[in-house]
Amino acid sequence: MGLEKNCGFDLHSRCQRGPGNRITDVPGVLVGHTTKHSGDVHTGVTAILPRPSDWFHQKVTAGATVINGFGKTAGLVQVEELGTIEAPILMTNTLSVGAALDSAVRYMLEKNGDIGLTTGTVNCIVTECNDGTLNDIRGQHITDDDVRAAIETAGADFAEGAVGSGSGMLCMGFKGGIGSASRVIEIGGKTYTVGGIVMTNFGGPGSFVIGGRHVGEEILRGPRKPVEDRGSIILVTATDVPLTARQCKRVSMRATAALGRVGSSMGNGSGDVSIAFSTANVIPHYPESPIASYPVLSDNYIDIVFTAAIEALEESIISALWHAETTVGRGGRTARGFREAWETYCRSMV
Amino acid sequence: MGLEKNCGFDLHSRCQRGPGNRITDVPGVLVGHTTKHSGDVHTGVTAILPRPSDWFHQKVTAGATVINGFGKTAGLVQVEELGTIEAPILMTNTLSVGAALDSAVRYMLEKNGDIGLTTGTVNCIVTECNDGTLNDIRGQHITDDDVRAAIETAGADFAEGAVGSGSGMLCMGFKGGIGSASRVIEIGGKTYTVGGIVMTNFGGPGSFVIGGRHVGEEILRGPRKPVEDRGSIILVTATDVPLTARQCKRVSMRATAALGRVGSSMGNGSGDVSIAFSTANVIPHYPESPIASYPVLSDNYIDIVFTAAIEALEESIISALWHAETTVGRGGRTARGFREAWETYCRSMV
Amino acid sequence: MGLEKNCGFDLHSRCQRGPGNRITDVPGVLVGHTTKHSGDVHTGVTAILPRPSDWFHQKVTAGATVINGFGKTAGLVQVEELGTIEAPILMTNTLSVGAALDSAVRYMLEKNGDIGLTTGTVNCIVTECNDGTLNDIRGQHITDDDVRAAIETAGADFAEGAVGSGSGMLCMGFKGGIGSASRVIEIGGKTYTVGGIVMTNFGGPGSFVIGGRHVGEEILRGPRKPVEDRGSIILVTATDVPLTARQCKRVSMRATAALGRVGSSMGNGSGDVSIAFSTANVIPHYPESPIASYPVLSDNYIDIVFTAAIEALEESIISALWHAETTVGRGGRTARGFREAWETYCRSMV
Amino acid sequence: MGLEKNCGFDLHSRCQRGPGNRITDVPGVLVGHTTKHSGDVHTGVTAILPRPSDWFHQKVTAGATVINGFGKTAGLVQVEELGTIEAPILMTNTLSVGAALDSAVRYMLEKNGDIGLTTGTVNCIVTECNDGTLNDIRGQHITDDDVRAAIETAGADFAEGAVGSGSGMLCMGFKGGIGSASRVIEIGGKTYTVGGIVMTNFGGPGSFVIGGRHVGEEILRGPRKPVEDRGSIILVTATDVPLTARQCKRVSMRATAALGRVGSSMGNGSGDVSIAFSTANVIPHYPESPIASYPVLSDNYIDIVFTAAIEALEESIISALWHAETTVGRGGRTARGFREAWETYCRSMV
Repeated sequence: MGLEKNCGFDLHSRCQRGPGNRITDVPGVLVGHTTKHSGDVHTGVTAILPRPSDWFHQKVTAGATVINGFGKTAGLVQVEELGTIEAPILMTNTLSVGAALDSAVRYMLEKNGDIGLTTGTVNCIVTECNDGTLNDIRGQHITDDDVRAAIETAGADFAEGAVGSGSGMLCMGFKGGIGSASRVIEIGGKTYTVGGIVMTNFGGPGSFVIGGRHVGEEILRGPRKPVEDRGSIILVTATDVPLTARQCKRVSMRATAALGRVGSSMGNGSGDVSIAFSTANVIPHYPESPIASYPVLSDNYIDIVFTAAIEALEESIISALWHAETTVGRGGRTARGFREAWETYCRSMV
Repeated sequence: MGLEKNCGFDLHSRCQRGPGNRITDVPGVLVGHTTKHSGDVHTGVTAILPRPSDWFHQKVTAGATVINGFGKTAGLVQVEELGTIEAPILMTNTLSVGAALDSAVRYMLEKNGDIGLTTGTVNCIVTECNDGTLNDIRGQHITDDDVRAAIETAGADFAEGAVGSGSGMLCMGFKGGIGSASRVIEIGGKTYTVGGIVMTNFGGPGSFVIGGRHVGEEILRGPRKPVEDRGSIILVTATDVPLTARQCKRVSMRATAALGRVGSSMGNGSGDVSIAFSTANVIPHYPESPIASYPVLSDNYIDIVFTAAIEALEESIISALWHAETTVGRGGRTARGFREAWETYCRSMV
Repeated sequence: MGLEKNCGFDLHSRCQRGPGNRITDVPGVLVGHTTKHSGDVHTGVTAILPRPSDWFHQKVTAGATVINGFGKTAGLVQVEELGTIEAPILMTNTLSVGAALDSAVRYMLEKNGDIGLTTGTVNCIVTECNDGTLNDIRGQHITDDDVRAAIETAGADFAEGAVGSGSGMLCMGFKGGIGSASRVIEIGGKTYTVGGIVMTNFGGPGSFVIGGRHVGEEILRGPRKPVEDRGSIILVTATDVPLTARQCKRVSMRATAALGRVGSSMGNGSGDVSIAFSTANVIPHYPESPIASYPVLSDNYIDIVFTAAIEALEESIISALWHAETTVGRGGRTARGFREAWETYCRSMV
Repeated sequence: MGLEKNCGFDLHSRCQRGPGNRITDVPGVLVGHTTKHSGDVHTGVTAILPRPSDWFHQKVTAGATVINGFGKTAGLVQVEELGTIEAPILMTNTLSVGAALDSAVRYMLEKNGDIGLTTGTVNCIVTECNDGTLNDIRGQHITDDDVRAAIETAGADFAEGAVGSGSGMLCMGFKGGIGSASRVIEIGGKTYTVGGIVMTNFGGPGSFVIGGRHVGEEILRGPRKPVEDRGSIILVTATDVPLTARQCKRVSMRATAALGRVGSSMGNGSGDVSIAFSTANVIPHYPESPIASYPVLSDNYIDIVFTAAIEALEESIISALWHAETTVGRGGRTARGFREAWETYCRSMV
């Protein structure tokens, strides 16, 4: 199934794809969606579970890069300081960050009787893009149940395209959405996985590039001129390579190369945030002793992780567009699916 | 009234206090509280309005420093990127950041029909401390009405102590709360104001220092030993000196000196966040032309702003403790007011 | 002359090239080289003058992004704090940063009798890449005279390729060097210029991409596999659009998109640093009054600056490789010029 | 001997002093000075060796905070990215950073034949303050021999006061210099050391506070008014507690609390830089395998490290002033030693 993530183009990948070619190829990582397509409502929630359960007591190591901070992502302050993630990462629409955060905290309280009572509080990451063109974003339609459902239905198998938080997104003049991909790498004779998942909502019309081919320009056939680049993108990278928080941050910065490859110019209005985490080392909320030992990758060997992350994220972006079908949104506004547009274009070329 | 903010101690101030000795001495800045003391609920919301109204269309310049990121403040990503604040700054309890953010966005949508419809989205800053010792924080008791009330009742005159978001806070072994102070300075023959407001919830017992006097140690008379330093502090500085975002960030960093003076050691569990804004230059959401001119202070003359900010924040912290009265909280837990403790101590010394 | 900067490929540019297609199209910006090719010595100095003269008393606004900090660039601390550049920006080899910095300071002292006597000190930026493969870098061959010559011979006309600090650099398996390009944009009816200059020393063999074409792979015809990505790149962007330091920093981050387009994966061993400055507003060392007004571009209109910067930097990188001729370096090691390799490849394809 | 570091005042320390009350109480850390007092030359070099030898092949973990970036410290870019220190940390005067860096690199090349030949380059950290009032700083008097001597004479026993790079410094109206102190702490039943060393050159006259007592004001007896706060301070913290780079960075931020306690307001012209490193985990330049395990302190137990660092740095600053004797510098300018000033003041009070 992973084959179509590249739309059939040669992405010049140097690393092998994972078996499912999704972020959930990283053992333990799960993804769930709540999708809301109804009337003027085209939005949702996507939850990325860094481990199957007990996120709070068994934290994963993490780092993040704010590529363009014109965005409202919540929860990054603590990631930067402590280098851990202790709850599912949520994606939703911009004006529902508060509701999703409130719901996520409520959910974590239910699951963890100690939070706020016998121990401290919980940090939930909620990322966002603005789906206001297709979605009645002012309606703030995300509820407790939506968040709960995205978390509780999370699995290794999940849909891509105009689903979950990607339901109402736009990207480079086409319908945006959720995409994912993965790479398998070998370090010191052991096999590891690097997976990516993205919510794509960025880029001006005509910008889209796949494997070096300027497909956006080809389809639109318009004159080349500077375009306003609104929207945003959220990029999440997971791996089971043992990385410190500092190294996760390094990985998260490489998302910029993936953006460069697909045609982004990181426009002013685009809140571009990249988060990376490693599942290899579980950081206990209640450590047994003050000092514990953890395996760590030497930075001398990290290049292949960078390469795999860039490739997985690049293919995730392409996959998001490939899978996002033409959608009629708020007030009848239509966003054309890239696949349909491309196939029409190709037929016209024959 | 400002005299008691220093508890009668000499703080060795080099700048004059403002007429109200509060952040609202900065023209246009308003503060409002929603205070919830009832049963096991001891929490609230404090709203700082950077201008009297129309925050979204007339943004103020701002910067922030995360002194210790073990916290959940939302909204800083965009401040760092764009250097502006476009909504009231809210303070509340840690587990209600989501609710407060959701409410703030809802409020902003009500007031601005263009947001999310004909223009982009809105960034609201919600800061927090953990009031879980005295407050049923797991109950997530902050509502839309609480946020609305804090914003709509905001004025130049406002209470300090165990009010608003400070209702359930603890600080260095005493009752914490909200405090504020201001300084008036002269630059180039013109008079400007620098004001501070803080939510104090940090520090181990016995740490409190006023004007060099280790009052915490005196009252507690315990042996000196390292103490765990939990909690957090939010520090907000406002001024009408024309500063760029970069300069606001510089001012926000100086909050650390105020923390050093009052006895903080910026403990692990303390989410310490400092925000500074300048009301001097209004940044329009819809600019009339692509390029506009703004007056800016030369950095050569910024020292006095730093000094005033440190003094205002130091006195704000002291004032928060001085005004926060003994409070019986969740499950009958009692936090002693510093003023009462100090007066008892002084009588015992006679 | 600018036509060949793209090696004849279509880069899908949306902005017009400047008249000289170099960074010196930005009025007042000058570039000079000292080139040392002799025996085992293949190194040099490149100086970028942000204004024709008097850099210290008439500072330009600036910002920087450290894309990958595995590098030794000096002088960025002050750029981040004060947002200005007050001396020529130097490029040289890694182990000569100290010598170049010392020389730059000495030069600035000569030109400015007040520095260190009646006023403070001077901040000089020295950037670097490691030319140790072709150059006897351990010899630390950069002298006072080399630095002085690069500054004093700076002009609007300057060479690209294996010259100046680019003399001994390698890039993606070919000879690296210095490249430059520019774009002309229109904002509010006025014309502005955005120019880039780069020192290229990054990337594994086979990575090079031009306008979407994987030319590196084509020439090398090897199997695709992850490669170690050593070296570094320095990217400098200049413009006469009036930008604040915060905005210059935003522009400097866009260099990552250019890197993504040409095939970089920002490898571990690659110190990638991007600096951007605006010549529009001169910040006086001795201001006439504490407060002065400066024109500033609204962020609402900054997209075109981002696009132009990415295009100028992308083309600068390509131009560096195009102009850098095959070089026999230290111990007879040969680095093949891309142009030669490409032309040979093309002939073989006929 | 450590007793006099607090000038006889009660600093309200909660942690025990180390046996030597200096940074060299941390096993393996050594400090050396080159002191140049002659004619108009009052400057020098201070070298802090994070380990006794082989710094390049056995790196220590590190982090840094730029409190105020109006400074010229070189080498921090790589510390931020890789989290290690691989050479002695040097302190010197502002205009000799280049010379000291060049010399440090030359020294490292001599000791390590692989650098720049069979492996990459070396990152040397050179910190600075401006000693231009007492020293002929324009003369750039630091030489290769000065740097070499500071490194090679480094030992556990070293002088404080107007020595090494502190020879010509000024601080809060008195003679500044080098100071050091240490604290011993217990974590999980094991004993660790936290040591500090500072180069003090900051603060306006009358600002100095010791243990809460405003000694600067007392001595100067002038009216309280805002003062310009020029100069800088470099603060280095060492420990044998096993910390990651992220945690070292957290420790380095706590230097701000020490600055707050002694009276700093982190003035505009003051380049304030804090560096922290842990000697516990040696990071090999040539790792035996891609992945290795390292012990790490849980952040839950880091509070005592913060407290010890603040106390050690606070006492280091006081010790620098206490030991720096009255110095007649360039052009006969005299900087009064604090000890002399204080003893004169105390006699006048009798």
